[in-house]
Amino acid sequence: MDKGINLAEKLSLFSEYWSPRTVARLNDYKVMVAKVQNEFVWHKHDETDDFFLVLKGRLTIRLRDRNVVLGPGELFVVPRGVEHQPFAEEETHILLIEPMGTPNTGDSTTAVPEQFI
Amino acid sequence: MDKGINLAEKLSLFSEYWSPRTVARLNDYKVMVAKVQNEFVWHKHDETDDFFLVLKGRLTIRLRDRNVVLGPGELFVVPRGVEHQPFAEEETHILLIEPMGTPNTGDSTTAVPEQFI
Repeated sequence: MDKGINLAEKLSLFSEYWSPRTVARLNDYKVMVAKVQNEFVWHKHDETDDFFLVLKGRLTIRLRDRNVVLGPGELFVVPRGVEHQPFAEEETHILLIEPMGTPNTGDSTTAVPEQFI
Repeated sequence: MDKGINLAEKLSLFSEYWSPRTVARLNDYKVMVAKVQNEFVWHKHDETDDFFLVLKGRLTIRLRDRNVVLGPGELFVVPRGVEHQPFAEEETHILLIEPMGTPNTGDSTTAVPEQFI
C-alpha cells in the first residue's frame, strides 16, 4: 500500500519563503508547495492563469482594483495578464499550479528555478 | 475585499456522490470538488494525467498493481493511460483537476456532464 504526496510533510522539508517546490507533475503543469510571508513583487503572467490554494495561514492576493483574501481550503485563480501581489502577514502555506516554464515573478530574469522536493 | 472560492462551502451545496462540480477554471483545465463514497468504475484516461487531492476523509486509489491511500492534505497524480478505481469507505471530499472535456469515467458515453457550482 503506497502513500500519496503529503503536503505538510513536503512543507516541513524547507523553510525559505517565496521559493516553491515541485511535488508532482500533472501533464505539462507543475504542482508546487510554497511557504510565504510578507509581500512578493507585483507581477503578471501573460501566458497563463495562476492558481493559489491556501493550506495553512492567510493569503491576500492584491489586485490593482481589489484584494482577495484566502484562508485554509480557499482558492483563487488569477486570470492571465492580471497584475497581482501576494501578501501574507504571517507564515502561510500554499499550493500552486502553473504550466512548466512559468517564471514565478512573471520575468525569467528574476525568477527562481524549478526545484523538486 | 473579496473572498476566494471556499471549497467546504461549495461541497455543502450538493450531496450526490461521484458527481464533480467545477469551481474554477485554470487555463483549459477544470478545478472540481467531488463527494465520493464506495467504489467508482475502473477506468483510465489515455490523453491526460488525473489529479486527486483529499480534503476530508480517506481515498484509496486502486491501481492494478497496488493501492495508494490518501488522507486530508495528500495528493496523487494517476499517470495517463493507467487504469485506476477510486474507492472510499466513508464519505470523502476531494479536489480534482483535469483538462476540459475529460470524461470522468474515461468514456464519454458514460461520463457525467460538466456541472458548475
